[in-house]
Amino acid sequence: MSENNSNAIPADLPLRNDLIGEEPYGAPQLDVPVCLNVNENPYAPDPEVCETIAKRVLEIAPTLNRYPDREHVKLRQAFSDYLARESGTRLDVDELWGANGSNEIMLQLFQAFGGPGRTALGADPTYSMYPEYARDTFTGWKLVHRNADFTLNVEKTIEAIHEVKPSMVLLTSPNNPTGTPLPMEDIERILAACERAEVEGAPAGVHPILVVDEAYVEFRKPGTPSAVSLVKDHPNLAVSRTMSKAFAFAGARVGYLAASKGIIDCVRIVRMPYHLSAVTQAAALAAFEHTDEQLSRVEHLRETREATAAWLKEQTYKGQPLAVAESGSNFLLFGGHFDDRDAIFDELLKRGVLIRVVGPEGWLRVCMGTDEEMERFRTALIESMRVVEAR
Amino acid sequence: MSENNSNAIPADLPLRNDLIGEEPYGAPQLDVPVCLNVNENPYAPDPEVCETIAKRVLEIAPTLNRYPDREHVKLRQAFSDYLARESGTRLDVDELWGANGSNEIMLQLFQAFGGPGRTALGADPTYSMYPEYARDTFTGWKLVHRNADFTLNVEKTIEAIHEVKPSMVLLTSPNNPTGTPLPMEDIERILAACERAEVEGAPAGVHPILVVDEAYVEFRKPGTPSAVSLVKDHPNLAVSRTMSKAFAFAGARVGYLAASKGIIDCVRIVRMPYHLSAVTQAAALAAFEHTDEQLSRVEHLRETREATAAWLKEQTYKGQPLAVAESGSNFLLFGGHFDDRDAIFDELLKRGVLIRVVGPEGWLRVCMGTDEEMERFRTALIESMRVVEAR
Repeated sequence: MSENNSNAIPADLPLRNDLIGEEPYGAPQLDVPVCLNVNENPYAPDPEVCETIAKRVLEIAPTLNRYPDREHVKLRQAFSDYLARESGTRLDVDELWGANGSNEIMLQLFQAFGGPGRTALGADPTYSMYPEYARDTFTGWKLVHRNADFTLNVEKTIEAIHEVKPSMVLLTSPNNPTGTPLPMEDIERILAACERAEVEGAPAGVHPILVVDEAYVEFRKPGTPSAVSLVKDHPNLAVSRTMSKAFAFAGARVGYLAASKGIIDCVRIVRMPYHLSAVTQAAALAAFEHTDEQLSRVEHLRETREATAAWLKEQTYKGQPLAVAESGSNFLLFGGHFDDRDAIFDELLKRGVLIRVVGPEGWLRVCMGTDEEMERFRTALIESMRVVEAR
Repeated sequence: MSENNSNAIPADLPLRNDLIGEEPYGAPQLDVPVCLNVNENPYAPDPEVCETIAKRVLEIAPTLNRYPDREHVKLRQAFSDYLARESGTRLDVDELWGANGSNEIMLQLFQAFGGPGRTALGADPTYSMYPEYARDTFTGWKLVHRNADFTLNVEKTIEAIHEVKPSMVLLTSPNNPTGTPLPMEDIERILAACERAEVEGAPAGVHPILVVDEAYVEFRKPGTPSAVSLVKDHPNLAVSRTMSKAFAFAGARVGYLAASKGIIDCVRIVRMPYHLSAVTQAAALAAFEHTDEQLSRVEHLRETREATAAWLKEQTYKGQPLAVAESGSNFLLFGGHFDDRDAIFDELLKRGVLIRVVGPEGWLRVCMGTDEEMERFRTALIESMRVVEAR
């Protein structure tokens, strides 16, 4: 089921003690007709977008013997333009920063603000990479439990901030793998708490940063504000974004950070020099020339989510209707009472549909595909549930 | 002189205590006619190479809504083919690994094999990024001093391996910033020592890995073997390579690792998922289709190095001939008795020639440019030394 390497690491290699027995992170990459497992936008870039990408790469290709612009200023300007349009907030170039996927953004934040003796605080269930960033930077990782409906328990989170004294608080908006929207007022309350809180091991007057991971935020309900709108007024706020999801550009690996210049300057200390290639910069700039086309299916994917959620709620497993978590994203966490979710996953896979076993026990996650893919998912899910029920 | 940000980081941000006052790493990126500071290959890719790159990017562009092949298998096959040709050794795909520049390779090695309580051992003067990898992974960093002619002091290095009990030993072949070649028998002796040595904090029977950084190795004297030839017989050896130097592909940020499958598996545990974009993979594969063209100027750059070294030795500063370190690379460390190397650097810069202030006091480093660039360097250096001497 996985390409992960289960061969033992030779015992004479000095692998870090805490990594012994660990496996590489990542969903299985399988050659399957319907891939609904990693929350991609299922619509390929239009031919004219592909042509612009190739054209812009051709333009910079004669410079490829030289190192790229380490500060990727043109791309940061493009992030600014995009966010001005998408979130209504205009940030300066020195309030923006790009990296190879938002997971490099997150790693850089952990490298700058984490480390031994420091703790990051999250709210589970949440994105399964966060503990890996913590592990890879020797940062402690603590969790507050969400409410039963997966909404953030703001009071308990604020209590934990004062108790744990983390250097970083991580909120995911909308959350992954649950899809749960995060109301702006919750973010503002947590931010206010961070601005009063202390950091374990740091001098008085140092406060935690709040990292809001907005990987899926373009799928939110139209009219809902983004945490980007708070950046100008909150120097301790970092908002992580990506071109991998709504923007349909996962293969190019471009994530970015909207934050105060102070936070960006901290990240610049730990970034690898020339971390962002000239080809990546050119390809991303080309894609931003076609922002309308790249985002053109977001509205349809939102509708697909709503229709799929409604359909799932009508389905039953062992006589009970399926639960569906409210989602502001391009995926749905569903089930809730699957007593053998791996079996359902396997039956779906036999029918050519790959989804994800993730989140609390009893639930499965599916991301929104094309209409044809969703049709196939629905048929396969009904069959799979019947097969597992009959065992 | 630098884009580095000297503005203070706001005191309320929880930047790691040990990073306070640190600056982002990197040579100044200045818009200067003659850039001889970051050891690039000065020859741009030929137009047909650029066209292949754009063509291959166009081919994969319709898949960019999907995540890339996390295991980048085709590219690892291309590394295998390239090394078979370049070093005469054929490695398997699972003995190869790629990343965004060899500095990501090195960071991944430090993430897997370093960490608190672990130490990496290098031989100074050496590459100035190594302590940054150590700092960013909380790994101790110790140094053995090289001989006066910058060759490795093998006896002292072996003594230090047994005394320090590092988890990683780093050798640079040829060395940077000195250019010093590293004889194969030195590598073999250090490797043998590593295979007998213990690692502080690890169980008995765990031995240090030896990392040989071959970033500039294609510039070595023809006929000299590469450490890649030792990989099959030494599971504790990791050889880091890059497309950034001789291969003239710095802008695309592709480094790679040749090592035992065990070492690669350790690195796979700490790599970011999807760290290498589909665009990077396609661009690198395209460049490898033109290996002959990409390497076609290496021989000329070697000749330029020899001619420039001979010329430098004929020059004098304050009545004494310039020293030039023996180099197996595309750069030369020269001077040795510059009593104000910053002044000479500045005078060169005024004349449109950017070199690098790096290495031991009294020395400067220049990399090999085109014939026209080297002519301009020679003229500017004579003038600059005369101006500084006259002060």
